[in-house]
Amino acid sequence: MKASSAPNLSLALAHHPVVNKKGEVIASAVTNLDLHDMARAARTYGVHRFYVTTPLDDQKRLVERIVAHWTDGVGGAYNPARRRALELIRIRDDVGQAADDMARHTGQRPRIVATSAQPGPKRIGYRELRQTLASGRPHLLVFGTAWGLSPDFLDAADGVLEPIQGRLDYNHLSVRSAAAIILDRLVG
Amino acid sequence: MKASSAPNLSLALAHHPVVNKKGEVIASAVTNLDLHDMARAARTYGVHRFYVTTPLDDQKRLVERIVAHWTDGVGGAYNPARRRALELIRIRDDVGQAADDMARHTGQRPRIVATSAQPGPKRIGYRELRQTLASGRPHLLVFGTAWGLSPDFLDAADGVLEPIQGRLDYNHLSVRSAAAIILDRLVG
Repeated sequence: MKASSAPNLSLALAHHPVVNKKGEVIASAVTNLDLHDMARAARTYGVHRFYVTTPLDDQKRLVERIVAHWTDGVGGAYNPARRRALELIRIRDDVGQAADDMARHTGQRPRIVATSAQPGPKRIGYRELRQTLASGRPHLLVFGTAWGLSPDFLDAADGVLEPIQGRLDYNHLSVRSAAAIILDRLVG
Repeated sequence: MKASSAPNLSLALAHHPVVNKKGEVIASAVTNLDLHDMARAARTYGVHRFYVTTPLDDQKRLVERIVAHWTDGVGGAYNPARRRALELIRIRDDVGQAADDMARHTGQRPRIVATSAQPGPKRIGYRELRQTLASGRPHLLVFGTAWGLSPDFLDAADGVLEPIQGRLDYNHLSVRSAAAIILDRLVG
């Protein structure tokens, strides 16, 4: 029933392997508002899970504390809508672990689709991915923090979504804005 | 030439008159990431100006400091893309002053279109507004902070854009996410 009513889609926000301004591969720090904005968009568009991936223990604990505040703590009582969003979050070491979790729940390996603000090989159009999602096959859509997912990660993904084109040569959306736009285009 | 290549569209982010959780009219505090995310989306989609409106002097100074850091200061040299976004910001007391500024620059009063997460009277569909924008008439699209623009403001606007419908009954996007999605729908 779920497959026909909503796409089998989860999100991952990766804090590693991403690149910094110089193109070096790093593990980035978690940004509180990334969690809130992307969880709220995920809930709005019927996304199953929102995986936050980081290999850093202190960053995992930070995410746990933020999520607990809004799901178990006073935040959850104060703002139930925020609780419904943040309870979609699952913390994992990396995108592979997130895919394993999806496979356990759906009985099928998800197709891993990365996102990038750059053109390049293996790009998938919005219409094409929208149709594939409608078929019910599980998909994990991966967003990178900092200056974006590493080239090796993009190479290893099953596909990469086309960058968002605005009206100008300017393409510097926040990951929060990009995720909102992409969800609206794919499952809105 | 501009009218044919890009819509004559500016944004306003209003910190008054907006409502709090109880529905009381307040002046909200400025959120740094609202400025960054909405300015980046505005630049991406060819928006002319991004007005940040607040009647509070300390909040105006805060916005001035943030903008100056990224346009004149070390931030502008470090990240020119961010400078190009934040230089769209204009600080005004209220939406009326923003509309006056647009009228001075375009020679025509803009049509003021408010946004709201709620259904109600005077709602305008996305397709309809997209067509009107393509005609070249100046429009000022107004977003509210906190729990949204006050009922009186919505009543006084020339129109109110339909709320974003996701897949569920859940409709609690951040103003940052909502602005990104709306720009993509209207001028993407």
